[in-house]
Amino acid sequence: MGVNPQHAEALLALPVLELRDRLASGALSALDLTQACIARIAAREPEIGAWAWFDSDYACEQARALDARRATGLPTGPLHGLPVGLKDIIDTAKVPTENGCEADQGRVPKKDAFVVERLKAAGAVIMGKTVTTELAFMRPSKTRNPHDTSHTAGGSSSGSAAAVAAGMIPLAVGTQTGGSVIRPAAFCGVTGFKPTFGAIPRRGILMQSPSLDTVGVFAADPAGAALLAEVLYGHDPSDPATAPRPFPRLSKTALSKPPVLPDFAFVRPPGWDAADQDTRDALAELVAALGDKVIEVALPAPFEAAARERRRINFAEMARHYFRYGRDAQDMLGPEIRGALEDGNAILARDYLAALDWKPVLNAALCEIFERCDAILCPAAPGPAPRDVGTTGDPVFNSLWTFCGTPAVTLPLLTATNGMPMGVQLVGSHGNDARLLRTARWLYDWANH
Amino acid sequence: MGVNPQHAEALLALPVLELRDRLASGALSALDLTQACIARIAAREPEIGAWAWFDSDYACEQARALDARRATGLPTGPLHGLPVGLKDIIDTAKVPTENGCEADQGRVPKKDAFVVERLKAAGAVIMGKTVTTELAFMRPSKTRNPHDTSHTAGGSSSGSAAAVAAGMIPLAVGTQTGGSVIRPAAFCGVTGFKPTFGAIPRRGILMQSPSLDTVGVFAADPAGAALLAEVLYGHDPSDPATAPRPFPRLSKTALSKPPVLPDFAFVRPPGWDAADQDTRDALAELVAALGDKVIEVALPAPFEAAARERRRINFAEMARHYFRYGRDAQDMLGPEIRGALEDGNAILARDYLAALDWKPVLNAALCEIFERCDAILCPAAPGPAPRDVGTTGDPVFNSLWTFCGTPAVTLPLLTATNGMPMGVQLVGSHGNDARLLRTARWLYDWANH
Repeated sequence: MGVNPQHAEALLALPVLELRDRLASGALSALDLTQACIARIAAREPEIGAWAWFDSDYACEQARALDARRATGLPTGPLHGLPVGLKDIIDTAKVPTENGCEADQGRVPKKDAFVVERLKAAGAVIMGKTVTTELAFMRPSKTRNPHDTSHTAGGSSSGSAAAVAAGMIPLAVGTQTGGSVIRPAAFCGVTGFKPTFGAIPRRGILMQSPSLDTVGVFAADPAGAALLAEVLYGHDPSDPATAPRPFPRLSKTALSKPPVLPDFAFVRPPGWDAADQDTRDALAELVAALGDKVIEVALPAPFEAAARERRRINFAEMARHYFRYGRDAQDMLGPEIRGALEDGNAILARDYLAALDWKPVLNAALCEIFERCDAILCPAAPGPAPRDVGTTGDPVFNSLWTFCGTPAVTLPLLTATNGMPMGVQLVGSHGNDARLLRTARWLYDWANH
Repeated sequence: MGVNPQHAEALLALPVLELRDRLASGALSALDLTQACIARIAAREPEIGAWAWFDSDYACEQARALDARRATGLPTGPLHGLPVGLKDIIDTAKVPTENGCEADQGRVPKKDAFVVERLKAAGAVIMGKTVTTELAFMRPSKTRNPHDTSHTAGGSSSGSAAAVAAGMIPLAVGTQTGGSVIRPAAFCGVTGFKPTFGAIPRRGILMQSPSLDTVGVFAADPAGAALLAEVLYGHDPSDPATAPRPFPRLSKTALSKPPVLPDFAFVRPPGWDAADQDTRDALAELVAALGDKVIEVALPAPFEAAARERRRINFAEMARHYFRYGRDAQDMLGPEIRGALEDGNAILARDYLAALDWKPVLNAALCEIFERCDAILCPAAPGPAPRDVGTTGDPVFNSLWTFCGTPAVTLPLLTATNGMPMGVQLVGSHGNDARLLRTARWLYDWANH
């Protein structure tokens, strides 16, 4: 590759915004950065396994074209020259997209997903496809946790989280139907951001559960997550969850100073009993340090039902949308999907419809809490990444917010006694994504100052 | 009442627009018209049974208030002084709304439905509540066909159709989930109009099947239907089928001259085998008379599945939304609803979700047809109103268009050999309600010239 290894290491340690600025000014070429990423991938991929498809020529070709464009003096996009990894359920034209599923081996889409169109238009380098669990569900993938490869990287966006955490790429895209963005981000020690439901169109992405599927992003820090997410927000008529509306200035708002210091509402969500001592201690310490910026709030009773009702929606819609996998590829599927399809096939329409009615009820209860704080603060997971690569971990603290459709972000601010990272999860009110990211950036800087 | 009977008869024979103009100019008082309607109701209600709730004082009080308002010179609404009947599943504040259901006897809503708010604001006289079949489903009501009381008036908006047909009121509101506007309108010999799905908000109306329930209107002629419907179009955030958008100028457009003579596509929808000889002959005669203004089109194969899939959606959603009737009032329900709830309770979520996916498929197929015509032309029912008050008739030619969500109108242009009226149904493309009404008004005038 011809990249000086020390130079490459130094580059990959820079914040995303610094890389963005150097690329924009021409101080850094897209090819140099891409080659630094390629070198890091070459060094760490064998033990981590973050990539489902990767081709250094494909990446370098894009980088060279971007450098050539910059040289002409033509305007460049907001992500000009930044390498991005894409969860392998996101369609890429002419590049394999195998959905983590044996039955989709060799599948090459004709068209880019909405988010890929946006990334290309923004000048990103599509670095390759990151590993997903089978059909973005619970079967553990080959990906290992970069902090300690005897630990899971989480799922289902395993490769996206691990690749960013390992410094292979500064940015990655994933999806969350239960806890598939926030959980792996927390386990791998990076920032994960799940926007308000419907903020990012899902055209060209494997549909598991259209009432829940949400596109999310990974970056080292919240400013990077805001930079990437802003490019992806929009409306696509083929995705009924999206609507034509002005998109929020995520990046600018995330970098701005909050008009007053943010207030947090610490909640112990349903499933709190599963939280380990590390998580309880670390959260207590953070809450104590934030002092009177934190109030404690109890979620009302209906939230106890949320996990059950969310699962009902997820499995019923999965039974519909993965129907052909169950019919044509039953033998190739792992036990997790087979079990979920069996459960989903038995769900009655009236129970499914009743489950959908919980979402507005839960959000009405949240409204009251958000009148008193900028963000809800809670753990991102019951503990650090389990030392067990046969699991993807427990999404209990994520699926609630996916169901509500509220924006959520996890920040890599905590460390377990075994040295593994843990995430602090912040949850904002519906549609207030920019404000949530501003609050997250404030907390990130406050914790790191 | 003090109304001269001859004067009352003459008044009630006038077109709605003429009544509207006389009321607006002051040539006719709201009280005179209301009392004429009351006299007609007194004369014909015993044999027809169109009313679930009616109180002449309630109506006269509104009429007097409207006359007083007009006398002040303040602006008047587009329906100033016009009596309107409301299907008894439409909530009226402080006035009983019993949903045609024993279990709801004595039910008095606190709030008006969206459409009632609109009618009051437009200056209509709320004449009372018209009979609905039990929970707007298939159990025959007490209402009889005004043309011959040994015949059914159809359902589920039985009272609305019969009251307009009997000249008791110039205008009425109903709803259609299968064929509950078009069918009774056709059987009773009036104009029935079912707008595009989502055009009229359903807040405050009994919810049977939110993917299908559509508010519709009844009048003697299409110009009257356009006048009433225009007042009801709008957006209500509590009804997700509605959207903020400019509402169409239905009334003005309906009265305008088509830029070129309209073209019709005659189709024989699935279930055509059920059409009786009267229907076939009358349609053939109409098609022949229209000459080269009509092309014949065959609906493609997927339409054969539409009735089954629509029923699945209807019954699954009914099982959800009528759950409490099934639980608390099982013994009070008729066999039709009990059977539907039993069927609906057994429908699987995945089959329900698969059924929903048919709607865009059917509409895509319709697009091609609407490129070649202004409206689809087909019968409104397989024949005239059955001579059997133990049925509400067959909605086979209506439920297809309810499922597609396309606007439909029936015009009382045909007569069966037994003298009973039959309807010509015109169907327009999604959202082109104003154009459909213009085409309908053209055909109505052409046939009556």
